[in-house]
Amino acid sequence: MAKRIGAQTVALTKPVAVAAGAAVVGKKEGEGPLRERFDEIGADAYFGQKSWEKAESIMLKRCFQHLCTKTKTQPEDLHYLLAGDLQSQCTASAFAVRESAVPFLGLYGACSTMGEAMSIGALLIDGGAADRLCAMTSSHFCSAELEFRLPLEYGGQRTPSAQWTATAAGAVLLRIGGGVRVTHVTTGRIVDAGVTDASNMGGAMAPAALSTLKAHFAETGREPGYYDAVITGDLGHFGHGVLADLAHDEGLEFPNVFTDCGMLLYNAKHQDVHAGGSGCGCCAAVFAAHILQCMQEGMWKRVLFAPTGALMSLVTSQQGESIPGICHALALEAEEGAK
Amino acid sequence: MAKRIGAQTVALTKPVAVAAGAAVVGKKEGEGPLRERFDEIGADAYFGQKSWEKAESIMLKRCFQHLCTKTKTQPEDLHYLLAGDLQSQCTASAFAVRESAVPFLGLYGACSTMGEAMSIGALLIDGGAADRLCAMTSSHFCSAELEFRLPLEYGGQRTPSAQWTATAAGAVLLRIGGGVRVTHVTTGRIVDAGVTDASNMGGAMAPAALSTLKAHFAETGREPGYYDAVITGDLGHFGHGVLADLAHDEGLEFPNVFTDCGMLLYNAKHQDVHAGGSGCGCCAAVFAAHILQCMQEGMWKRVLFAPTGALMSLVTSQQGESIPGICHALALEAEEGAK
Repeated sequence: MAKRIGAQTVALTKPVAVAAGAAVVGKKEGEGPLRERFDEIGADAYFGQKSWEKAESIMLKRCFQHLCTKTKTQPEDLHYLLAGDLQSQCTASAFAVRESAVPFLGLYGACSTMGEAMSIGALLIDGGAADRLCAMTSSHFCSAELEFRLPLEYGGQRTPSAQWTATAAGAVLLRIGGGVRVTHVTTGRIVDAGVTDASNMGGAMAPAALSTLKAHFAETGREPGYYDAVITGDLGHFGHGVLADLAHDEGLEFPNVFTDCGMLLYNAKHQDVHAGGSGCGCCAAVFAAHILQCMQEGMWKRVLFAPTGALMSLVTSQQGESIPGICHALALEAEEGAK
Repeated sequence: MAKRIGAQTVALTKPVAVAAGAAVVGKKEGEGPLRERFDEIGADAYFGQKSWEKAESIMLKRCFQHLCTKTKTQPEDLHYLLAGDLQSQCTASAFAVRESAVPFLGLYGACSTMGEAMSIGALLIDGGAADRLCAMTSSHFCSAELEFRLPLEYGGQRTPSAQWTATAAGAVLLRIGGGVRVTHVTTGRIVDAGVTDASNMGGAMAPAALSTLKAHFAETGREPGYYDAVITGDLGHFGHGVLADLAHDEGLEFPNVFTDCGMLLYNAKHQDVHAGGSGCGCCAAVFAAHILQCMQEGMWKRVLFAPTGALMSLVTSQQGESIPGICHALALEAEEGAK
């Protein structure tokens, strides 16, 4: 039975564990620093399909299959599948699992979707509605550029603040049990700081990240130093700097590892990704392939995972609207011998 | 603490009430049989805005404001706001509430979104994560036609099976308490029967509706006659007929009121809506303005509300894909003197 401890934060009272994760990524992501940790790396952007949209769906489907295989889970044993993506009407997710026969809850939180899916999933387990479920998301560079900005064929120049939407899918199995546990969920409010540049999503989302982090620390009574790592996703290098500045202005410093999934997926020096990674699949894959593994291996004991999302569309950008941001945070704690 | 009673169904153990509803609709919807029951009827399709997308957002915002006003709720008292819509990246919802400062969970379930929002909302309250929250959705005829089929300016001919996407928004307040209670939640699996005609969404969704209704009756041990009304939304006249045929083939008959929100919103004889209403806002507005009120007034004591969704997009249609359907059902029970 969850315990509400503030306007945005709920403390879980049951042991809800992130039992396992899986990640499938594209070729470029597979050449980055986390390349040894993914379950599968695509040979190209197509994953054997004729369109980028279908490619994304197949990538996510394979990710789900990897998760089921490595955890010896039959899809029919799952109580829910929570998923979302950046395609219009979230079709990458729906089509990825349309044959799975798992009760399906479609979500949309832009790049924060993995945070939202894991948050709702953890609360459903804590509340007794489920014993085990899967949370997963994906994004694809080629489908996202067309969806949010310009067709790739246009060959538009990218600004330094532009992020690279990751071709990546991540999935986790949440279940009753020990190991790496979700202890708190802080659900974000929408924060719109008035940024209108769709090539500066990191800047647009940073105020939302700050809002949720502040709420989390205030409502839990914890200091940032309580965590071994505070990891947002995906502000990228530019947005991470904005967040650091905004936090500093409010007297908030992060003494330990303070980073962002958009900074972890690629090698900023050798890969041409401008401000770093973004897209639902970025933080999902980084979580499944890196953060969770670091916790299972004992490198980090306490992590605050805070995916951020920019709740805009091509239409709202074209109509001159600013970009509302959101950030959902989960506190994770590894028990001894978590793996 | 929720009690899982089957692969898709959870029984709630706390009293989770639909305390109130609000609905704002467009001009055409305001000329239909439910016209006396809406909180506000727009004078035209624009709601004072310059685009249909912004119009939808404002309509949903006003709906939320009506709900807060009539229930004397301050937005900051709400623990969650669960919302979604049919626009790409669900921007109607995000923009409607970006100033509200309520923790926000964006959902996408196509026309089933209200069922999904109320399901997750009820489970969050039952599980202790929230005491009160708002579930709401919207759709807009003009933005949806462009989004899913053709720009209105094209003046395309409509087929007899085509439904009319409602210009409508609906919102409900869920909270701990008595009155009209949510007793069971049956979450749908995706069912893809291979229908590829985007003008026959009722036919595409009917198999999903049957799947969820069958699961609900099997897992609760109830007969369809247990309910005073079984109301899907939004299959429309055509899809309702398909569902009736499919159900009949499996020996399932509905002895009492068996209808569909898409059949209730418009006057089929005098309004040119072909197969009836659809869109997230259709079943949301019909629920808030009609079903809930009928239960509060004692006309119906037990209702099974089963919103359906077609999980396709313009892109998937253009790429020749079939239309996956989904249906989420909620069992509602009115206590004596529910109003």
